[in-house]
Parts: sequence; C-alpha cells; structure tokens
Amino acid sequence: MESTPVKLYVDDGSQPSRACMIFCEMNNIPYEKVETRILKAQHKTEEFKKINPLGQVPVLQDGEHYFRESHAILKYLHSTRNCPDHWYPSDAIKRARVDELLDWHHCFLRQGAGNTVFKTLFGPKIGMKFSEGEIEWHKTILSYSLHMLDSKFLGNHKFLLSDELTIADLSIFCELTSLGFLSMDFSEYPNIKTWYSAIDSIEEVSKVCKPVKKFIKMFNNQLKAKI
Amino acid sequence: MESTPVKLYVDDGSQPSRACMIFCEMNNIPYEKVETRILKAQHKTEEFKKINPLGQVPVLQDGEHYFRESHAILKYLHSTRNCPDHWYPSDAIKRARVDELLDWHHCFLRQGAGNTVFKTLFGPKIGMKFSEGEIEWHKTILSYSLHMLDSKFLGNHKFLLSDELTIADLSIFCELTSLGFLSMDFSEYPNIKTWYSAIDSIEEVSKVCKPVKKFIKMFNNQLKAKI
Repeated sequence: MESTPVKLYVDDGSQPSRACMIFCEMNNIPYEKVETRILKAQHKTEEFKKINPLGQVPVLQDGEHYFRESHAILKYLHSTRNCPDHWYPSDAIKRARVDELLDWHHCFLRQGAGNTVFKTLFGPKIGMKFSEGEIEWHKTILSYSLHMLDSKFLGNHKFLLSDELTIADLSIFCELTSLGFLSMDFSEYPNIKTWYSAIDSIEEVSKVCKPVKKFIKMFNNQLKAKI
Repeated sequence: MESTPVKLYVDDGSQPSRACMIFCEMNNIPYEKVETRILKAQHKTEEFKKINPLGQVPVLQDGEHYFRESHAILKYLHSTRNCPDHWYPSDAIKRARVDELLDWHHCFLRQGAGNTVFKTLFGPKIGMKFSEGEIEWHKTILSYSLHMLDSKFLGNHKFLLSDELTIADLSIFCELTSLGFLSMDFSEYPNIKTWYSAIDSIEEVSKVCKPVKKFIKMFNNQLKAKI
C-alpha cells in the first residue's frame, strides 16, 4: 500500500473534483489541493493540457503519473491506498453493481445535470452559446435520471447498494449538489431526499462542499436580487 | 474461475452488445445469444424491464444474476472468467489507463456517435422526434471525439494503450462501426483508420459484426436508391 501524498488538480465547483476530494478525506489519503479554476479557464491552458489533453478537472498526480476522469481516479486510489472494501468491493458481483451505477451516472445523470447547470447558467457567462433544443435535451435526461434514481435505484438501503457507501454514492451525490444552482430541493423525490441528506451530513462531505454551497447561496441571492 | 455458460440479451445493431459478444468470442466464454430487437422495442417490454429497469441492451445473465451496462459486463466477465490480463490489467496504473478511456467513451464518443446515428436515422423511423439543436450538439461532440481519438489517444501503439487489446479498444471500436450508417470511412483520421482496420480484421470481430455490416450495406443502398 502506498502512502505518498498525491496532488489533486480540482475546482470546488466541479462535481467530479469534489467526489475525489471527499474520497481522500474519508479515507485519510493525504492530498495537496491544486486549485484549477474552470471559470478562469485554468483547465484550458497549454500548461494544463500537458497533464490532461482533454482540458478537464479533476486530475490526480501520483508521483510521476497523472490520471484523469474521476471514476478512474477513485478506482485507482481505492486499489493503491488502504481503503475499506465497501467503497469498491472486491467481490465480483458487488463490484459490478457499483460499475453499473457509475456507468449510468456518466451516460445519464451527468449528461442531464452537469450540462443543464453549465449550459443554462455558467456557459453563457463566459461567452458560450447553446441552442434551446440542446438545453431541452439535457433537461429531459436530467428529469428522467432523477426519476430513475428515486424510483429504481434508491429506497432499499441507507445508501445505493447497502448500508455502506460506495464510490457510486459519492459520484452521484456530488452531481446532485450542483443542482442547488437550479434551486432544486428534491421534494418531488423522497428517496433521493433521504439518501442525499444522509451523505450531506457526513463531516468530510460538509468540509469539501462548503465552498460550493457558499457559492450556490451567493449565486441564488444575486439571482433573486435581479428578479 | 466460472465456466457456466452465460446468456447475453443483445441486438446485433447495438454497439455495446457487440463489444460483449466479441469479448466472449475472443475469450472462449460460452454464451447463449438472446436476440432483443431494439427496432421492435423488445427492450422496452414490461418483461424485459424486469431484468433491466432501464430498458436497454446488453444484459448479461450469469445464473440468477443479471448485469446491465456493457463496461460493467466486460469487467465482470474478465474478473470471473479465465481471460488474459491484457484485456483489463491487474496492475493499478495500467488498469486506470483503461478506465480513463472507458469513461471518455461514455462521456464523449458515445454521446456523439450513438446519439447522432440514432437521432438522425433510426429514431425518426419509430416515430421519435428530435430538435435540430439537440442533433447539432451530438454532431459537435462526435467530431471533437474523433479528433481527440485520432490525435491524442492513438498513434503510439498498435492498439490504444499497447500492442495488446483492452476492453476499451473493443468498446470504442464497436461505437465506430455504427458510423458506417453515416457512410463515415475515417479517411480524415489516419490513426483511427489503421487502428480500426487492425481490429476489424480479427476473425471473431468479423463474425460478430457480420449482421450489422450487412444491415449497414443494405441501409446505405436503400438510401442511395432514394436519392
């Protein structure tokens, strides 16, 4: 098992960045946080693209190795650090259940949530334009995903697959936190609401999410002031 | 190591279905193919939703267990059957490289390729309507993904990560096969062209892709006849 500190190139406002930081916090993995501001396009500089040609956060640096994609990073950290099995079980069937949810997160929820927030609120602020049809599609996927999460994936256990957390819980939870920008409170989705609150109240989660929550509050207040 | 035959609920026209079948063929994993026709909406019946509430193929049945999501299925098969390590290496760094590509496949290439083909060609045939803006977005992601694949991910080895195949090669290859419906031949992308041909010429790949290639040919001929 490795114990060398890692570097995480992250933005507090990025859902997958937060998932990686929470995982490190909850597993006592020492990490150096390298702030890489998306709204300042720091992830799109030539310098940054040397460590991730896709120009995306998070990036994990472990010694001379750089890793991109939060799911890949979470799995890599789990397999190289001393983390409890429940996060990404070694049992093949249980692991497949986590993988199914992570794949669903990327193919559905993230296409809906991340894109709706970015394309309706932040993209336009940095001069990006998106068509109505494109935004409508993301909203449809978001609504479908929340319905599936609430009605099919949650409700049987405290967390998604059992009464213990997995990396899928973290990834999906972090995606949903950003929906605060849309003032979404999950009151339509009772199972999401209960599950979300259970994770939200964890000390390490609160710590990592503090900056984004502050930003969400400020953002929504400004929006109200404008209306 | 298990040797019980598995069942694969698949459609020859589905990219992730083909990836699972090719993996079984190349690793001598006995499987029963259960044809589940997308264009006949056989994946949306109440019966099928009992085994996959998302109403999607492929589904893997291993004894009493059902698994959805092709990436999860490929990993599960690799960990429970007697497959060479190169497909999904046990070394943490090499495995993370495969995971990065699989995540990229879901977040980018699949959003572009699968959706462009479906929404421009097949969706409308079964009465589905999509806005121009939505389709434009998928096309943009497709074009960006092909550029990244050609210029950043390919060109250093025979396959994506080395001279041996991984499950990421299969998943990405199968996604590209469907671009035949758009008459795409990758002449703009020399690295993709070479890599694609190397996989395409493998006997087991040819066997699994035979029906979809026949369908692509027929489809494009019909289209030409109409023009």
